[in-house]
Amino acid sequence: MAAVQSVSASQIAKIILSVRDKQPLIHCLTNNVVKGFTANALLAAGAAPAMVEHQDEAEEFAAIADALLINLGTLDEPQMRSMRRALFSATSANRPWVLDPVAVGPLTTRTEFAREILDFHPTLIRGNASEILALAGEAEGGRGVDSSDESEAALRAAEQLAATGKTTVLVTGKIDYIVSSTQKGAVANGHVLMTRVTGVGCAMGALAAACLAVSPSPFLAAAATAVWLGVAGELAAEASKRPGSFQVALLDALDSIDEEIISTRANFHAAMEPLN
Amino acid sequence: MAAVQSVSASQIAKIILSVRDKQPLIHCLTNNVVKGFTANALLAAGAAPAMVEHQDEAEEFAAIADALLINLGTLDEPQMRSMRRALFSATSANRPWVLDPVAVGPLTTRTEFAREILDFHPTLIRGNASEILALAGEAEGGRGVDSSDESEAALRAAEQLAATGKTTVLVTGKIDYIVSSTQKGAVANGHVLMTRVTGVGCAMGALAAACLAVSPSPFLAAAATAVWLGVAGELAAEASKRPGSFQVALLDALDSIDEEIISTRANFHAAMEPLN
Amino acid sequence: MAAVQSVSASQIAKIILSVRDKQPLIHCLTNNVVKGFTANALLAAGAAPAMVEHQDEAEEFAAIADALLINLGTLDEPQMRSMRRALFSATSANRPWVLDPVAVGPLTTRTEFAREILDFHPTLIRGNASEILALAGEAEGGRGVDSSDESEAALRAAEQLAATGKTTVLVTGKIDYIVSSTQKGAVANGHVLMTRVTGVGCAMGALAAACLAVSPSPFLAAAATAVWLGVAGELAAEASKRPGSFQVALLDALDSIDEEIISTRANFHAAMEPLN
Repeated sequence: MAAVQSVSASQIAKIILSVRDKQPLIHCLTNNVVKGFTANALLAAGAAPAMVEHQDEAEEFAAIADALLINLGTLDEPQMRSMRRALFSATSANRPWVLDPVAVGPLTTRTEFAREILDFHPTLIRGNASEILALAGEAEGGRGVDSSDESEAALRAAEQLAATGKTTVLVTGKIDYIVSSTQKGAVANGHVLMTRVTGVGCAMGALAAACLAVSPSPFLAAAATAVWLGVAGELAAEASKRPGSFQVALLDALDSIDEEIISTRANFHAAMEPLN
Repeated sequence: MAAVQSVSASQIAKIILSVRDKQPLIHCLTNNVVKGFTANALLAAGAAPAMVEHQDEAEEFAAIADALLINLGTLDEPQMRSMRRALFSATSANRPWVLDPVAVGPLTTRTEFAREILDFHPTLIRGNASEILALAGEAEGGRGVDSSDESEAALRAAEQLAATGKTTVLVTGKIDYIVSSTQKGAVANGHVLMTRVTGVGCAMGALAAACLAVSPSPFLAAAATAVWLGVAGELAAEASKRPGSFQVALLDALDSIDEEIISTRANFHAAMEPLN
Repeated sequence: MAAVQSVSASQIAKIILSVRDKQPLIHCLTNNVVKGFTANALLAAGAAPAMVEHQDEAEEFAAIADALLINLGTLDEPQMRSMRRALFSATSANRPWVLDPVAVGPLTTRTEFAREILDFHPTLIRGNASEILALAGEAEGGRGVDSSDESEAALRAAEQLAATGKTTVLVTGKIDYIVSSTQKGAVANGHVLMTRVTGVGCAMGALAAACLAVSPSPFLAAAATAVWLGVAGELAAEASKRPGSFQVALLDALDSIDEEIISTRANFHAAMEPLN
């Protein structure tokens, strides 16, 4: 059983400021729908994105970059080869990496691939409830990229994935849950408009990689990611109620968030048991 | 000869509300320039986009999704394989599908491929005049993605493509024409700024797939698509005269359009003969 | 030694107006992160973008289009084949072409490929200081897409690349330098927010291709490109200080810039020696 542990707003703010200060270089092997938005989200956050795809170069670059994102959204055979070689290189160089198992469950190839690369022990797995359930082998997941299970339902699956002690899991939904082998937490920031813009979840995986690159712990990095993006969503929804302008405002908010906003808005709960 | 038939604003509004209510899952095999914008346009419309490219998964997913979009904009060999398998699967499962024959005519590979997959009988073909002419074998089309023929000129080609009774054709331009084996119509909504943003035409193909998924007839789905996007373009042009902010306003307008706006603005003409 | 030569604001304005008037068709073989933004930047500038990737079609299309962009950002094996064939076709048809050697230096495959295609004599090379140094074989460049050398440092490398008289080099940074075998210049327009949006540098390569298509000289085309985009960045920064809305404003500004704005704002210096 995971213990309850609190994360303070000032710890989260410190991660955000550290991303802006250190500008970690994030190697993104991600899907073709969201590459532009992911790069813009990382730049808005203060990090440096790079998408290097050729299998030889992906291996070279994964050791140069500060963290690696593996997102399975539009997986194909050449990308699988690049991902395997980048993972070998990144883990050999002790770089943190994030697995975003997009649409794992109903689709066979990516589900098998996702389970295969679990052997590289992702520092963080970010997925919705369906994806986390499917990755742990407990369910066949949803029809696609949207979550059809509530994130609470995936908590047991997350605990199972985190049990080795080598992986932390961020289960995203209306409430985001963070589960490691020793800690649990929940973040209640965010806004429903975030589901009306493509790539917000994928950008979250990339942002998590940036936070991992500067954080003393994956658990804290996951908390900072969920709060940063969630608060940005809240600020953006105050600026706009329509998806086109919301997307623009979301990038602006990733950039404008400061310590004071975090201290006022961060909605991190250590006591998640009643929700379980 | 196709008969003239009217479509009412309330029929169109009903399709729009139905997309928002049912949130059809649209499998998009589309080009790499517009994947993000296409997904955002579908989300703004209330539909659920998914781009699944791997050939095994494309076959799997086409039977799960509610409709399929085949857009030839950046066709390559792996995508041709995925498209063939997705088409086999989608048509076996009786899913509607849209063919967007981007730049067919001057480019050999895609022109041959487009004619090959006509055997799967697209529920709807959406193209500009050059593309429709080339697809029907009547002309070699334009230099690229922009139409160099007026859409009226392609009406005969559209009638020919629709003659089997299995396909409806949406010829887009300043005026959009809709041609089935039994009906004809024209939509005069839209704004010239729509040609200053990449992917508006491609998003129209995706929106058509979403409308097909909830519509009792392809003809009505095509009319709803042309009116919905055209009116959104008009609203966006009232909000902005520059292409960057126009693109943002266009997504907002896809979301904000309601029954009242449709009843005021829909410009559907059944009597298209004088224009022919 | 290159001679100093002045370029007037009215010469630059003439190029901009000519792009809008002639709407040159630009064949972009570019990276998957920026395809949408590149197309939108070209459309905002008044040019016509087309991304044709299949190797047979890339060869066909390069002879149809008015200029070719080769950007190495997400190079893979199929794209290398398409690029070789497009280059063969474009240069046979005497079309101008731009090489954007993204991240050349630290990554082996693209560095070798970039040097290989120098044999096709790019009409213009656009890169940051690291990339220009690495391309000329003088340094191993930076960690990724961002410049880690000041652009002044790359001037000698640029002179070496331009020495054949067949290539002009645009070294971009806080100040942009233009070097041909007979002329040198510097442009001091721009804003730091341009580094917070993905694809601004890549869009610059595409814009350069559009300017080359209508310009009497590559040197003047490079000057017009650097001034047009740089002034657009300044105008956008006056409209917004955050990266999301800055990106939108940048596209709007590419469209809104006119002769008067250019005459007021163009910051072209012929006398670059003191900076060297």
